[in-house]
Amino acid sequence: MTFRFTSIGNSSAVPAYGRIPSAHILNFKESCFLFDCAEGTQMEMMRLGIRRSRIRHIFISHLHGDHYLGLPGLLNTLNLLHHRKEMHVYAFAPLKEIIETEMRISGHQFRFPLHFHDLQEEGSSLLLDETGYEVRDFPLAHRIPCRGFLFREKKTGRKIRPEKLAEYSIPVKEIEKIRSGHDFITADGRLIPNEELTREGRPPRSFAYVTDTLFLEALAETLQGVDLLYHEATFMEKDARRAKETCHSTAMQAARIASLAGAKKLVLGHFSAKYRDLAPLLDEAREIFPESYLSAPGRSFDI
Amino acid sequence: MTFRFTSIGNSSAVPAYGRIPSAHILNFKESCFLFDCAEGTQMEMMRLGIRRSRIRHIFISHLHGDHYLGLPGLLNTLNLLHHRKEMHVYAFAPLKEIIETEMRISGHQFRFPLHFHDLQEEGSSLLLDETGYEVRDFPLAHRIPCRGFLFREKKTGRKIRPEKLAEYSIPVKEIEKIRSGHDFITADGRLIPNEELTREGRPPRSFAYVTDTLFLEALAETLQGVDLLYHEATFMEKDARRAKETCHSTAMQAARIASLAGAKKLVLGHFSAKYRDLAPLLDEAREIFPESYLSAPGRSFDI
Repeated sequence: MTFRFTSIGNSSAVPAYGRIPSAHILNFKESCFLFDCAEGTQMEMMRLGIRRSRIRHIFISHLHGDHYLGLPGLLNTLNLLHHRKEMHVYAFAPLKEIIETEMRISGHQFRFPLHFHDLQEEGSSLLLDETGYEVRDFPLAHRIPCRGFLFREKKTGRKIRPEKLAEYSIPVKEIEKIRSGHDFITADGRLIPNEELTREGRPPRSFAYVTDTLFLEALAETLQGVDLLYHEATFMEKDARRAKETCHSTAMQAARIASLAGAKKLVLGHFSAKYRDLAPLLDEAREIFPESYLSAPGRSFDI
Repeated sequence: MTFRFTSIGNSSAVPAYGRIPSAHILNFKESCFLFDCAEGTQMEMMRLGIRRSRIRHIFISHLHGDHYLGLPGLLNTLNLLHHRKEMHVYAFAPLKEIIETEMRISGHQFRFPLHFHDLQEEGSSLLLDETGYEVRDFPLAHRIPCRGFLFREKKTGRKIRPEKLAEYSIPVKEIEKIRSGHDFITADGRLIPNEELTREGRPPRSFAYVTDTLFLEALAETLQGVDLLYHEATFMEKDARRAKETCHSTAMQAARIASLAGAKKLVLGHFSAKYRDLAPLLDEAREIFPESYLSAPGRSFDI
């Protein structure tokens, strides 16, 4: 069952070496989520052969231009290409104002339902609560209000042991009850406990999106046990002072968070334009957290 | 002396087949002008090897997103790359409001002088009056207020005939006076008329930028004798009805304007995403105006 993270853009504020700023896709079953939407996202998706029309939910971490300037163009293109399905945007309130101003001036109107959901600056909110998954946000520490996002699959029901269906001649209509935890009584009146008929479902998987932020040790708790952590790694350790000044993290700091959180895998991104070659950032991260990887345009990670 | 037009993006509203929407560069001597700035302009310039830091004047024809959504990102990048020279933007007033809102929300400030010049909806205005050239705008007929731009080299002074300098022993200090129209009196008192000492300078050259507009016959007068006319050609003639409905032109209509104006050369652009192959648009234009050409990303035309 699809659960896949794909980078579209992984540069920090300045596009460089063919890398555009932040934009990432998460595919979960049939659903498609966009995390940040830098200028050029729609063109880069087209170039990478990633369908833009599948996106239904867009999460914008904060209102620095390199995280949202591609949104008006993407929405405009979907509009012109006859997109008619609902679209949800989760962002700080002024983004709605900007996009509505642009639409008013242009004389255009969206021909699909566009819902803006305002992010809050404090605490953690449940943004999406759907069959099979939920999305929460949480605070980061940047120069302006900024949020991380935690996407969690819900616990799946217990799995039926197929051999037991035959053994006790279980009728099809009973299966859903057993899956939800009920015992079964056979035709001759024997009670078969649920534990014998089922086994634990697959453990639920999770994905976290963390950009832009200072090194924030408290994140480790929020991110405990996450399967895939995308964490910004704007700088190398030798530029740690610059990272602190600009409220960003180093690759090594991202790795420390992954390690403290007991994450399964770390994907680094949001690289400064000062680094053409990113291998040294990866080396630094792997010293601390061996399951570290570099994001790259079009590179996917299965979760 | 450089006078060169280069396309960066030539798609209409929807980017397609590697073509981004409207963005074009004009180089005149050492100066660089940008006409419209679609999303992705800064990345496309980087890809094409065109220096962004040379731009001093940006003309935005109208406030449909495909003509300006790349401007905030371009300015932001120049800011981060330590651009410190003056920048002038000529656009309808709300663009200033949008960019100022974005800057306020981001907490960033431009560290170079950024001057907005409001375009007027009516008549024609002299936007720039510099040594050697001037730029005027003029009205087009689109769904929202939209302006064309006419860039005209100023008449150069008369050229000295070099053989006359020796013949009459003309001192260097007299040359500037002769160039500006004065006669010369030789050491033995003879008056040599200016016409004998000089010849006409090179005729001044011109460039016009026309997008987006209905077929507008009256433009022929404004554009009389223009050396290079960039004219939108969103549709083919078989889609002329669609052109009219959306306030755009066909390639053949663009050619008609070029022909009526006695233009020297026509460059077509702003192509609809319905046409992958643009050759048929060129064929249609050349039936009417043989000196027609297709714009393409990175393609330059000397004026």
